[in-house]
Parts: sequence; structure tokens; C-alpha cells
Amino acid sequence: MQNKEIELLIPELRPEAGLRLQKLLPIMQEQGLDAVLLASSANVFYMAGRFFRGYVYVNSDGQRIFFLIRPNCFLTDGKEVIAIRKPELIPDALAELGISMPKNLGLELDALSFSDIERLKRIFPDAAIGNASSVMRDCRMTKTPYELRLMREDGEHQMAAYRKITRLYKRNMTDVEFQIEIERVLRLEGNLGFLRTSGNLMEINLGSVISGDNADSPSPYDFAMGGAGVSPALPCGANGEIMKPGQTVMIDMNGCFNGWQTDMTRVWTIGDVEELARDAHECSRRILRELEKMAVPGVEVRELFDRANSIVEEEGLEQYFMGHRQQAAFIGHGVGIELNESPAITPRCKVLLKENMTLAIEPKFVIPGVGAVGVENTYVVTPSGLENLTPFPEELTDLL
Amino acid sequence: MQNKEIELLIPELRPEAGLRLQKLLPIMQEQGLDAVLLASSANVFYMAGRFFRGYVYVNSDGQRIFFLIRPNCFLTDGKEVIAIRKPELIPDALAELGISMPKNLGLELDALSFSDIERLKRIFPDAAIGNASSVMRDCRMTKTPYELRLMREDGEHQMAAYRKITRLYKRNMTDVEFQIEIERVLRLEGNLGFLRTSGNLMEINLGSVISGDNADSPSPYDFAMGGAGVSPALPCGANGEIMKPGQTVMIDMNGCFNGWQTDMTRVWTIGDVEELARDAHECSRRILRELEKMAVPGVEVRELFDRANSIVEEEGLEQYFMGHRQQAAFIGHGVGIELNESPAITPRCKVLLKENMTLAIEPKFVIPGVGAVGVENTYVVTPSGLENLTPFPEELTDLL
Repeated sequence: MQNKEIELLIPELRPEAGLRLQKLLPIMQEQGLDAVLLASSANVFYMAGRFFRGYVYVNSDGQRIFFLIRPNCFLTDGKEVIAIRKPELIPDALAELGISMPKNLGLELDALSFSDIERLKRIFPDAAIGNASSVMRDCRMTKTPYELRLMREDGEHQMAAYRKITRLYKRNMTDVEFQIEIERVLRLEGNLGFLRTSGNLMEINLGSVISGDNADSPSPYDFAMGGAGVSPALPCGANGEIMKPGQTVMIDMNGCFNGWQTDMTRVWTIGDVEELARDAHECSRRILRELEKMAVPGVEVRELFDRANSIVEEEGLEQYFMGHRQQAAFIGHGVGIELNESPAITPRCKVLLKENMTLAIEPKFVIPGVGAVGVENTYVVTPSGLENLTPFPEELTDLL
Repeated sequence: MQNKEIELLIPELRPEAGLRLQKLLPIMQEQGLDAVLLASSANVFYMAGRFFRGYVYVNSDGQRIFFLIRPNCFLTDGKEVIAIRKPELIPDALAELGISMPKNLGLELDALSFSDIERLKRIFPDAAIGNASSVMRDCRMTKTPYELRLMREDGEHQMAAYRKITRLYKRNMTDVEFQIEIERVLRLEGNLGFLRTSGNLMEINLGSVISGDNADSPSPYDFAMGGAGVSPALPCGANGEIMKPGQTVMIDMNGCFNGWQTDMTRVWTIGDVEELARDAHECSRRILRELEKMAVPGVEVRELFDRANSIVEEEGLEQYFMGHRQQAAFIGHGVGIELNESPAITPRCKVLLKENMTLAIEPKFVIPGVGAVGVENTYVVTPSGLENLTPFPEELTDLL
């Protein structure tokens, strides 16, 4: 068991490693790459089942080498797992294995820094460089049965923690105090207290609890909802104010328990809230029910956005949809190892739904003076529509 | 108060903004840049006092423009704060303000992705491109009095939370359960539940609690100590095992309360621990006392490393220093907006200490069968040595 620390090389998981490789190879071919060299934590974790310091090299012949930088982290076998001190030693190591240099090499142009990419380019001076980020986004967009099992587990854990939320509330609590107690039950349920995101615009702590007009505070980040936060260093989410009767409390907390994650939002109320808010919440649920039926393989992602939008228009709720002062231009996103995976459910997204894609769909509304309402579930696309990985009661629940 | 949301443009903070600019300009000149364009969250936050979506442009004449991408986030004044839809509109906006195009433009080559940098390069086709990441690292290495005040506040909050740690322990707790209770008191003390790091190798949740031989589990990350973690997705820190008598528990938790942070480690024991561990802990304290005296402006950073190392050798503790199975090659680091700022205290670092640099110094040991020991404090360099921003009792504290 020399490679026991590269999870996907243990015998029970080798078939899973094979499946991921089989998904990757045709996409590499499609995008004209004869090899990819991966170093971002999301993609190393995806290809190895464990994050390590180093690189994963895959070529179009299906050869896959794990290059480990801190060699004493792991045992090596000299065939699939090679210890190197620095990436400059990769070409010699490939030559020793009889693997020819790539002509078209994919590097993670969207995930690694300019400096890191320039260093890697110098190591492969004769290769044309393509974008492995886009290859890996496509590859990871659909999930294997094993990944789906992990995401189902995430959903179970996240729901188990959400079941405890109502009893955590105390009168005159601030949103931050409420969030802290929710963080604790999530962590005790096994939440890693951490999740991976893609891009520069997704900074967050353990999630978002927004109440009242804080839902209407614009945020610079790429989340569906805003919130002012408690610090200009991290201007999003809970703002530290006491949650008041007549307000809603939208809870959209970290669902990462095993490296994958589910993304799930529910709304609680502090006593009675305005009918407009209740109507908008029901509209969100109606949108989800419709999309659950129509989202089958072959449908264009933008059709989901359009359908949601037309339901909102039918109900005359446009001005509250996906924000009020500032409106988000999407109603959901892929989810998996990263919180924001492909596809983004936007008016322009022409990606075709495929079986085993996972989508977080979050039609939300901001009602001035009340707060945010709406439901978010994480789904998997099946031939008969969406299967919900977060089947948790969707009704508004009163905290008083 | 049109610009009230750019914190450093409010009248009380304009002098602070001026100080940061005055620090930046000579470093730009030194590195041959006549402008920098910043987009990373750490540097936008540093230059604006608030994170926003967009860019900060600074040229060698001291002109500074905040370009906001999501315009409805903020009000604009058309002089210092300009709303744009995309970065491609920056050159026209500069022209309208009568600001000439840069000849040598610094971009954050170490922080932004290759794709983001390529996009910005196309916007300034005639500019030679330099590295604004290194400019900003140098600039942020020393702190203004205002920044030091914020870091002192971090220290106060972090110490207030650490004071509660002993009473959080319950017999037969796992390290993860203990960490979760510490996270909660930190968060209730105002911790943001979030911190910024630099580079790809610093993934973590709210900190590190390591006990027993888990301290000796190598980790792929760039932290001083390892730990196996509870998931191959995040292989660092607490591993979920019950903490046992005879073990130490090293606690190195998030100290970010306002966007800046202190970094502080203390060690608790479960009953009596081996003398070797106690000796090594005292050796760490002796190192800190010596470095506190010798670390004055003008000293080379590597001299700190060498002095620590020679004390360790005098005491014959080399094989345990900074890890046992895997040893870290540094004993501390700059700290501020990011957890790992410049300088790194390594054997090769020739940076000269300057007044108002902030350093986290963490001489730590791993004792097989017992766990990690050692103390970490965050310091500011003064003419008479180091001032401790985390003056919290350093002795081993028994949890039983």
C-alpha cells in the first residue's frame, strides 16, 4: 500500500479514478490539448482524492502522474507517484518514464497566478499553452455516482444541522449571534468549516444569515444575496443588528462536509411578516417546482432562467427578484468541490443540461422592510427532471 | 458624504490614506513603475479601507482613482471614484481626467490569475508590465500607527477569547470538538470567521488545534505545523481524535477581527507531560526573549532565524524543531491584512528589519508521543526591540 495517501490510488477507489480520467480525456481532445498539468487545490483534490502540494499530469494516452513537491508527505512508487523538489524537474521525470513532451499543454490559466503560469510555461518552452481551467470546469460539471454519493451525504448533514436552527434562536439575538450558533451545530455535524470557491469574488466566512433590510445592502461579491457584513474588510452577510419582529431571516450556510458540498437556503420569520413576502416566498417555491420538471438532459441552461423570469413577471414580482437595490443576474450555479461551478444559470448560458450535472437553484426575492425570501436547493439532473439533494421543509418557519 | 463607502475617503481617514500613499510612491519608483493597477482583495482593502469590486489605480504623481465595477454599490464623485462596467473602460476614464497612460505599469502578477492579467495587459498595450505584488508586499510590510492600533485591537480580542479556552475543555473531548468551542468564543468576541492569506498553500478553516502525534502528521500546506485534518480535502489541523492524558494541545486560532489580524499560539496540556516537552517549550520562550531584544531596525531577518537555530542547537533540540517527521524552513512571518505577509523569517532572508514591521514569531517543537509545544506572538519592531501585541501568559496550562 505504498500510495495509500493518494486516495484515488487505493484499490477500492481506482475505478473512481478511472471514471474521472475517462470523463477528462475526451474534453482534452475536444479542446485540442494532448496533456494538462494541474496544481490548483480543487483540481488536485479532484484528480487525486486528496489535496497535496504538487502537480497532476495527464496526457491524452490516459497516462497520469502525481508529482509531489514535499516528498516526505507521501510515499512514492516511481511510476504513478513521483517526488520532485520543484516543477522544473517534471520534464526529466517524464522522459525517464518514456512519456513524450506535450505539444499542446493545458495549464490552469483561470486559477493559477500569472507568475505561477509563467514559471510553468518556461518549463515547457516548446508547448502551445491552452486553458486547463476550462477543461476541468467542463469535466467536473457532471458528477460520478461516487461524487453524487458524497453530495447526498453533504445534504443529509446539512439538513441535520438545519433541523436544529429553530431552537437556537433567542429573542433579541443579533444576526451574527444567531449565525455563530448555527456555525457551531454545522461544525458539530461534521462541517469542515471551509469551502472552496472559484474566482476572486467569493470571499465569505461560514455562510450568510441576513435579516430585514440588510438583505438590501449591496455587496461586491458574486453571491446571490448581499448584506453589509460587520466589517468593511468583508462586506457581506450578517451586519450585527438585532433581528426584529416582522423580519425574515434567510439562512444560506456552508454545506461542505467532505470536500464536496450542497448549497441550501431556508427562511425563518420573526413573528408575522407582510403578505408580499409570503407571496414572493411561494413564488420561489413555484419556480423550483417548475424547473424540477423541465430541467432534463438536453435543455439549455438559459431556458431555466427564462422560465423563472416569466413566472416572476406573471406574479408581478420583478422589482424584488434576486435583489431590490441591486439585482443578481443569475438564479443558480453548478456546485461540487467548488461552491460556484459551471454552469451559471444566466440569461445567456447555452450549456445543455446533462445527466448527473449538479445545480444549486436559488430564486430569491428581497422585500423592502422585511428581508429576503426564497428557497435554494441542490439538485442533480436526471432523465426525468431534477432530484433534490436537500429535501428539507421549504415553508417559512416562525422563530417566535 | 458622497464617498462614504470608500472608508479611506471619509475625512477622518484621509490622513491615513495619505500615509499609505506616501509609503507606496517611493517603492513604485524604486521598482521602476509609474503606475499600479490593483484588484486583489487584500490590496483593494488596503488602499480603500474597504473591499469593493473593481480596481485601484495609483500613479507616480500620487493620483489615485477608485474604479468601481458594480456601480450601484457605491456613490461616485467623478474625480476619485469612477463607476465603470468593465476594466476596458479605464483608459478612456483616465484620459477624461487628464491622466496620461503609464509607461511602466505594475499589475499583481502573484495574486491575479493568468487570464485576469492577460486581460489587463491588453487594456494597456503600450505599457511595460511590472509586478505590483512585490511593490505592495514591500509597502504593507511596515504598518502605519492606525494599522498598529487595529492590530493591537486584534490582539486584545484574541487574548480575551484565549482566556476562556481552559474552561471550554471537557474530558474525552476530541480535538475537533474543542476547536469548535474555541471558534464559538472567538466569533462571539468579534472574530470575522475569515482571514486572508497569500498564495495557494494556505487553505485552513478557523485555525489549528493539534494534539499528540497528530502534530507530527505532515501537511501539504505552508503552515509551521501540520496535522492530518479530518478530510483528505483539507489535510491539516485537528484530526478528530480524543485528546489524551500526557498530550499537549497546541492552539493557533484565527485572530482576524477587523481585516487585520494577530497570530498567536499557546499550548495546553492534558495532565502531566514528558520533561522533554516542557524543556522544548521553555526553549521556545527563551528564543522569543532573545529575539525580542535583538530584533531592532537594521538587523537582517535571517539573523533571527540563525539565532533561534543556535539556541536550539545549544539545547540539543534540533530534531524536534519546527516539526519532527517534516520540518518547516521558517520560524515566523510578517502578518497584517494577510496571515503570511513579508518577510518570511528564513535562513536566507536578507530583508532588514524596519520600525513598525509586524512579525509573528513561532519557534515550535514536535515531541513524538506528546505533541507540539512552543509559543507564537505577534510583534511590532520598535527602536528598542520587539513590542508584543499578544502578551498572554506563555506557560503550559493544564486542562485537567
